Amino acid sequence: LNTLFPFTGKAHLIGVTGASGTGKSSLVNQLARHYRQPRQAETPPRVAIVAVDPTSPFTGGAILGDRIRMRDLAGDPGVFIRSMATRGSLGGLAAATAAVVQVLDAAGFEVILIETVGAGQSEVDIARLAHTTIVVEAPGLGDDIQAIKAGILEIADVLVVNKADLPGVENTERALRGSLSLGHPLPQRMLHHGRMETLPGQPDAKPDQQEWVPPILRTVALDGTGIPELVDAITKHQAYLKQSGGWKQRERERLQAELELLMQRTLLDSWRSRLTAGVYEMVLEQLVARQISPYQAVERLVSF
Amino acid sequence: LNTLFPFTGKAHLIGVTGASGTGKSSLVNQLARHYRQPRQAETPPRVAIVAVDPTSPFTGGAILGDRIRMRDLAGDPGVFIRSMATRGSLGGLAAATAAVVQVLDAAGFEVILIETVGAGQSEVDIARLAHTTIVVEAPGLGDDIQAIKAGILEIADVLVVNKADLPGVENTERALRGSLSLGHPLPQRMLHHGRMETLPGQPDAKPDQQEWVPPILRTVALDGTGIPELVDAITKHQAYLKQSGGWKQRERERLQAELELLMQRTLLDSWRSRLTAGVYEMVLEQLVARQISPYQAVERLVSF
Repeated sequence: LNTLFPFTGKAHLIGVTGASGTGKSSLVNQLARHYRQPRQAETPPRVAIVAVDPTSPFTGGAILGDRIRMRDLAGDPGVFIRSMATRGSLGGLAAATAAVVQVLDAAGFEVILIETVGAGQSEVDIARLAHTTIVVEAPGLGDDIQAIKAGILEIADVLVVNKADLPGVENTERALRGSLSLGHPLPQRMLHHGRMETLPGQPDAKPDQQEWVPPILRTVALDGTGIPELVDAITKHQAYLKQSGGWKQRERERLQAELELLMQRTLLDSWRSRLTAGVYEMVLEQLVARQISPYQAVERLVSF
Repeated sequence: LNTLFPFTGKAHLIGVTGASGTGKSSLVNQLARHYRQPRQAETPPRVAIVAVDPTSPFTGGAILGDRIRMRDLAGDPGVFIRSMATRGSLGGLAAATAAVVQVLDAAGFEVILIETVGAGQSEVDIARLAHTTIVVEAPGLGDDIQAIKAGILEIADVLVVNKADLPGVENTERALRGSLSLGHPLPQRMLHHGRMETLPGQPDAKPDQQEWVPPILRTVALDGTGIPELVDAITKHQAYLKQSGGWKQRERERLQAELELLMQRTLLDSWRSRLTAGVYEMVLEQLVARQISPYQAVERLVSF
């Protein structure tokens, strides 16, 4: 990875996140297919899919998902697919994903789709690895209060209501729009919302004075409806980032997040290796017997 | 927390986890209400609900959920509700949840329901804080491959198909049953599956020779259907754990998980405080310029 690292930084890293049932795997497959379609004189970009499944901490169930995928995209040597399941260690999956993305970036994949299942903290950490983050919703999911999702929406650059052929699509879109304004409470943002929505990335926009407002798009991944528009929004976001200086800022944030994840693991590993055999067990026994609190246990362990 | 810790260890910690849209908040409310119903001569247990929402890393959207909750359980002084949203730090939420649970345990709440949104790594970490973990599903969610959830099912002690009045309940139950056997690949487990399912916790069972097989229950949280049966299964699981020695084992695992979470944070904080101002920024600049890799950056930072 040290040798490869200078060759990274060329790929567009696109995170795709959303709850189970939003159909985001199909959406990612469609995106990959669309990117790979030959058009005009351009060579289509090589596309990598990194499918991260933190819900499978023990059995590594991602393998099955891979097979389904393969069927859709098989035979195209310009598409590489890699599934990753967590090994149960906190932060370990995000660090491993970062490493895989670096290898693919150095290997010349221009588009890297990082797909994450669910919308928990680990997904947010993985989303921080991307330049452009797509949050996928679908109608009919969740009687949980929509506004609760404001947090995940704050990391969204593009919002997608997939399965837009199902009833309730207007409700989902309205809820997203509501949460979006909750998640961006700055008054000037609210004010500019309507006007700015179609501007970013267009030639007449002044990107350094403007803020990107996440567009809300409808797709039907199963038949490909809305996929060209989604790819267009992704491309616009990339152009916006590059024009506004946001690309460099994201790169910096990305690398910083990666560094901190790695730092955390390194510190824990280094502490573990310094620990004398038996000390940990002794302190754990005292803790289990409730002679000392977890905080006191940490104090004792750190002092060794 | 050090002073309170010796008074902990009395509460039954019940984790309730499941994806958005499974109606697990309503389920938790119903469980609390059922526990609080006076029956025979017994005083009903005091119940605490700790609702953890790792999907809201920035805005702390949990407050809204709280209000809805209050309406259901308001006026009962034997019920305490606390919502927690992540502050964005990896592992921080699980550590904070553990601390809150300790305070409630020491304060004499006999039943503590720990509710987590979603099913990612952070939810698994929080589930590790519980004695009994309930995984909630609902019909009609997810065209993602069901088997992928085998990982989360491995932490389940009780499985609930909520919204069991909706069509597709049989499919969901079948998928769960399939995933459950995938998640427990030991041949003797498979062999005993049918026979053992109803045995654990019953007087004639020999718990130390037996393994708990997670029952699959149907509920309709909105009207309370299946709630008494669910409480019964939770109670049986507690009895099973106590008879089989599993309770002590869980306590140990719980406390160990808590210790490691805390250790991780302490190590990171301590490293940060040792770091000279400017060093971190310098190394980050080198990383952003791709002069060094993230691994080399960590090496440099550790050496300071």
